[in-house]
Amino acid sequence: MSEALKIGIAGLGTVGAALVRILSERHEALAGICGKAIDVVAVSARDASRDRGVDLSGVKFYTDPVEMARAADIDVFVELMGGEGDPALQSVRDALTSGKHAVTANKALLARHGVELATLAEDKGVLLNFEAAVAGGIPVIKAMRESLTGNRIQRVFGILNGTCNYILTQMEKKGISFEECLAEAQRLGYAEADPTFDVEGNDTAHKLAILTSIAFGTKIAADEIYLEGISNISIEDIKAADELGFRIKLLGVAQKTETGIEQRVHPTMVPKDSVIARVDGVTNAVAIDADVLGELLMSGPGAGGDATASAVMGDIADIAKSRPGYQYGPVLGRPAASLQPYSRARMRSHEGGYFIRLTVEDRTGVFASLSKHMSDNAISLESIVQRPGSAGNGDKKTVILVTHATMEASVRKAVKAIGSEGYLADKPQVIRIERPAAGA
Amino acid sequence: MSEALKIGIAGLGTVGAALVRILSERHEALAGICGKAIDVVAVSARDASRDRGVDLSGVKFYTDPVEMARAADIDVFVELMGGEGDPALQSVRDALTSGKHAVTANKALLARHGVELATLAEDKGVLLNFEAAVAGGIPVIKAMRESLTGNRIQRVFGILNGTCNYILTQMEKKGISFEECLAEAQRLGYAEADPTFDVEGNDTAHKLAILTSIAFGTKIAADEIYLEGISNISIEDIKAADELGFRIKLLGVAQKTETGIEQRVHPTMVPKDSVIARVDGVTNAVAIDADVLGELLMSGPGAGGDATASAVMGDIADIAKSRPGYQYGPVLGRPAASLQPYSRARMRSHEGGYFIRLTVEDRTGVFASLSKHMSDNAISLESIVQRPGSAGNGDKKTVILVTHATMEASVRKAVKAIGSEGYLADKPQVIRIERPAAGA
Repeated sequence: MSEALKIGIAGLGTVGAALVRILSERHEALAGICGKAIDVVAVSARDASRDRGVDLSGVKFYTDPVEMARAADIDVFVELMGGEGDPALQSVRDALTSGKHAVTANKALLARHGVELATLAEDKGVLLNFEAAVAGGIPVIKAMRESLTGNRIQRVFGILNGTCNYILTQMEKKGISFEECLAEAQRLGYAEADPTFDVEGNDTAHKLAILTSIAFGTKIAADEIYLEGISNISIEDIKAADELGFRIKLLGVAQKTETGIEQRVHPTMVPKDSVIARVDGVTNAVAIDADVLGELLMSGPGAGGDATASAVMGDIADIAKSRPGYQYGPVLGRPAASLQPYSRARMRSHEGGYFIRLTVEDRTGVFASLSKHMSDNAISLESIVQRPGSAGNGDKKTVILVTHATMEASVRKAVKAIGSEGYLADKPQVIRIERPAAGA
Repeated sequence: MSEALKIGIAGLGTVGAALVRILSERHEALAGICGKAIDVVAVSARDASRDRGVDLSGVKFYTDPVEMARAADIDVFVELMGGEGDPALQSVRDALTSGKHAVTANKALLARHGVELATLAEDKGVLLNFEAAVAGGIPVIKAMRESLTGNRIQRVFGILNGTCNYILTQMEKKGISFEECLAEAQRLGYAEADPTFDVEGNDTAHKLAILTSIAFGTKIAADEIYLEGISNISIEDIKAADELGFRIKLLGVAQKTETGIEQRVHPTMVPKDSVIARVDGVTNAVAIDADVLGELLMSGPGAGGDATASAVMGDIADIAKSRPGYQYGPVLGRPAASLQPYSRARMRSHEGGYFIRLTVEDRTGVFASLSKHMSDNAISLESIVQRPGSAGNGDKKTVILVTHATMEASVRKAVKAIGSEGYLADKPQVIRIERPAAGA
């Protein structure tokens, strides 16, 4: 058996502690599988004295992760601190520069500095693995980077944030408002005290930016993402979706179009009978449309200490199985130097179906006016539902329009024109529809 | 850039032709990703003159695959002929023996000779990749063999045969019989003229045997599988399943229990609101319960030339990305020499829920008798449905029992005892229930 692979872990939160536990409990089995032992020889954390429920005797303790990254006696630097800036950035940079492999679960770091770090790793001939950074324990990076090598990817989309999916699922199940669900999610630890980053889609956007780069061979462009969160999704939307055969999910979608690449994060209607529509609670899912394969869907735990540690462990095992002399596959699927500039497709050119929910004054001519604005903008309708307004709102009507595939610019123009007619009693709600390919 | 990777492809059916096409169309892109060109330099097929719609000029043609496998001028032998015996077996053996990597899509070959071939590959320090052998384009082998290295797997189950899933889906959608659906599937090319191998579960069993070995680190035991096909599933079963919140799928299930490892292929009730229940038509799906991660589900195209070629292509790219000096991860997830004997858990010890549909004479005391037999065998019931018999069967009643988790031996004993009472008007139908973990 070869010499042991020496690991340094930066960050001893729930993921770091779970990782230390697995590496200890499965030490012998892993050595058998990988052909060498995997030994944790160093850790770094801010507080050396805190009890983390794992045995760290004999392990060198650092309070400075950058110092640990530079230390000569580790083969793999595992970054589990999070955050797009230092010390995560500096320590991963230093680890790679000094010829160490790096494994990270840090989506923000990769969304901001992924191309720089991939270039560095490839220059140094070391691996930078980051399966845990997107969709937690779901092996989507490996699938895209390795399994689908023979394919051109046309679209990748997914439920990438467990907090949002939990809230949307609960709103539907219990018939309660976004605010009530959020409060419950906070009580249960599924949502942060400041939930903005999750519910407004930023977390999903970070993950999407990484997927886009691997899917299309373009530089990571985390600032070029259309962003819409779930905070304005109402129980009326969810009920209407249900009636019309849809469920609402916060999706991150990257898609190649004639004008460039769309990157968008928004609440989305997905057909109820699709597989992704059934992905409930904190579970994540990713669907990949590939030209040769067709559509591949993966779902599983997207967050949490154990699921994340499982993905980090897979990344470490891949390194352990390799040997000196092996030239690794490119970090982002293609050699970093060959990544193309990201060419953004504007949202107004987006083509798809739309769900439009309008609360209108109950007066003559409204329906004719709505119809006229739709047809003036060449929008053809798949279904129309008209209902009395909600309780205490008796003189109002709800009109729901579901369009066939049309251009976003047309929908915006039509909705704006409708807004200027004076009969809207509430802000119009517009939700995009996404249709999985057969099978997902 | 390194020297080109030289490929020889044995078998030029739909998969082989699709593979040649991808390797030609994506030649440059693949070279960029893999750091070397992938060149098809040899092919073998029975008929040299047939037009397969792909350009094979400059490619050496063999009529004998074994001869090609022995030829010195290829790095990778790609076996796409199928069949558990020769020439597939001999040619893969010879390719590995002569130090060539091998890629195969052949489930039957691996189910019978996988351990022997894995041992040979590991002895020779070459790769044997077989992603396409199980669930077509779904990267389940890679996920289990690499991504889940840090996990103990507790259960793996899936929809592994597209023909059966197509038939069951159509029976439900159209309300027609197994026989009618099978005829239609044959017309559409989804089922063979002799469908036995698919509909009786043998194909699923081959794939399951491979998954079991990787999941539990045991020798492949393709003959130790409990087998029940879908030919006796009636439209009544499907309707009753629907009423009770289930759908019927042919699942292959491998599960660790206290008495050993269960390998079973049978029609199965899965809860309607589970993700796997929504996997329709020819699509395949695999769910993996892992101790650290939780449950991972993957669904996608399980067969067909393109989906299979996509998986084969991923296997070839993995080899292309590697370099001499690299010692590969074990073929079946653990070193072949360390695989444990398969220890079979008997079906009568299987624990789970059961769906029992009985057609009974409409007379007094029947229901009391049924209840007594259940309670005599310590079977507790989750639900009971009693209905008039089907048309032309007016003096009969249908009774459906859904049990809580119980032992198969108890169910068999109870059903046998009920059968001896003389009031059964038809063969009793017993279908096992499988409950995915949360999220799948």
